[in-house]
Amino acid sequence: MKNTILVVGSVALDSVETIHGRTNRGLGGSAVHFSMSASQFAPVRMVGVVGEDFPGSFRRFLKRRNICLEGMEILPGKTFHWKGRYDRDFKNATTIATHLNVFEHFKPKLNCDHTECGVLFLANIDPDLQWEVLKQMGKPRLVACDTMNYWISLKRKSLIRLLSRVNLLFVNEEEARQLTKEHNLIKAARILTGMGPQAIVIKRGDSGSMLFYGGEVLAMPAHPIEKVVDPTGAGDTFAGGFMGYLAASPDWRNINVLKRAMSYGTVMSSFSVEDFSVKRVGRLSKPDMHDRYKKYVKSLSIV
Amino acid sequence: MKNTILVVGSVALDSVETIHGRTNRGLGGSAVHFSMSASQFAPVRMVGVVGEDFPGSFRRFLKRRNICLEGMEILPGKTFHWKGRYDRDFKNATTIATHLNVFEHFKPKLNCDHTECGVLFLANIDPDLQWEVLKQMGKPRLVACDTMNYWISLKRKSLIRLLSRVNLLFVNEEEARQLTKEHNLIKAARILTGMGPQAIVIKRGDSGSMLFYGGEVLAMPAHPIEKVVDPTGAGDTFAGGFMGYLAASPDWRNINVLKRAMSYGTVMSSFSVEDFSVKRVGRLSKPDMHDRYKKYVKSLSIV
Repeated sequence: MKNTILVVGSVALDSVETIHGRTNRGLGGSAVHFSMSASQFAPVRMVGVVGEDFPGSFRRFLKRRNICLEGMEILPGKTFHWKGRYDRDFKNATTIATHLNVFEHFKPKLNCDHTECGVLFLANIDPDLQWEVLKQMGKPRLVACDTMNYWISLKRKSLIRLLSRVNLLFVNEEEARQLTKEHNLIKAARILTGMGPQAIVIKRGDSGSMLFYGGEVLAMPAHPIEKVVDPTGAGDTFAGGFMGYLAASPDWRNINVLKRAMSYGTVMSSFSVEDFSVKRVGRLSKPDMHDRYKKYVKSLSIV
Repeated sequence: MKNTILVVGSVALDSVETIHGRTNRGLGGSAVHFSMSASQFAPVRMVGVVGEDFPGSFRRFLKRRNICLEGMEILPGKTFHWKGRYDRDFKNATTIATHLNVFEHFKPKLNCDHTECGVLFLANIDPDLQWEVLKQMGKPRLVACDTMNYWISLKRKSLIRLLSRVNLLFVNEEEARQLTKEHNLIKAARILTGMGPQAIVIKRGDSGSMLFYGGEVLAMPAHPIEKVVDPTGAGDTFAGGFMGYLAASPDWRNINVLKRAMSYGTVMSSFSVEDFSVKRVGRLSKPDMHDRYKKYVKSLSIV
């Protein structure tokens, strides 16, 4: 179980409109995007909640990807549904509707297998729930979390308590600034490191990502994509590739391992934006993944 | 003269205010920022115009950096003066005042030595003037140009005529989109390549830069800087490092040479933002430059 990842987060149906089309009630949610990506590298167990309307086809689709759904509870009512639209620049999503439905009452329950997982990813949910999950765990060798502006405003104290106990924090640049009240990302990351996590990953969309670990500051570009169809879930897909690679590695506390994890995260998220929902990652072959990884690494090799 | 760079552009006095302070009538202008950077790599000859108020100390400062000022004309009147302010995020400059002064009547005049230079950089001026300069040249082995939103709107035809005769175009991402009416940068670069230049460099500020050459698409991150003092001239400093490195190379038509040029451009621009005007680049030592270059290259090496 040392290399198995437990992810706790949202499972959703997403209705998304972009300049390249639309999707209606596509498979989404942070735990789903994360798992689809991480399961390319390591076994994944998912804890989440869906309603009675959650399609059996989605359930089978996830299982085929070697994602254990024993922790995916079904509650009376409907599945979390998000409806949004992206502008031409894909920078900001306009939320048309958010129906939390059964997700409003989500109380993650872990079974024995869950608590023995070596790697834990706490996707973006209420930091009090993230804390509850963490307390139920055995002795995971690596704990990472994500969060969002909403929790930074409303549950700052709970979030700071959580940060004191995680190894790795994923945030986007606005969240890093909001959490630290510091605009410069190097300074912000230093403040975040002081809150607990040994490593900080700042996600910057098509501007790439930054890693801060042991005094090292590393900026990496996004993999350029000619046709961005839907950026929903790109951040969770990034985290999935990153954490998946770390879970499969004997020791994550190594800058070269972390750089490869950044690269796999980048590559996985570049696939995810090429189609709606988890379609592109769903049909991704291992050779395609490794080919793009090699291309990305080669492009950054300056000889 | 094969490795000597001729640059034609503005020489200015800049009064800039940022969150880290202000400078009054500091040395600036596209030709100056470019030359200060390029002269780290190759001999530079500058063609520009200043007024009678242009300080002798600035002239001596430039000459000490091995920048030939024979082509820097002095006209009756005052030097181009730009006054601006940056917000905390340094993304957009607010212009408080632009006094073109003698620059309004700038007609670049080349002497025999100028026309024999092997490398030409047409910094951001009226594309009709850029064209006039190009016509006066002998047979340069490499011609590059920059431009801006103002000329794209007002002198589109002149600019397109110019592009048909340059090897390399530097633009920022907004300019690339404005010029091509295409949002995606890979597609935009393909359209730009169709207009003439064999290589396109898209500058993206703290999001890094992109190079398009011979079907290759390369994204590179900015070098992260902890204290950005003044971003004025960072783009010209980038172009200076890039062109300087190419001028010193026997053959620029090689992807590895171009990648090193991108890296030197990135590194030079990272220095330029650390102080007002050309102060940081002015006191930059070759070992400091090469150290940061090596650090940057190493950070991107994924092993």
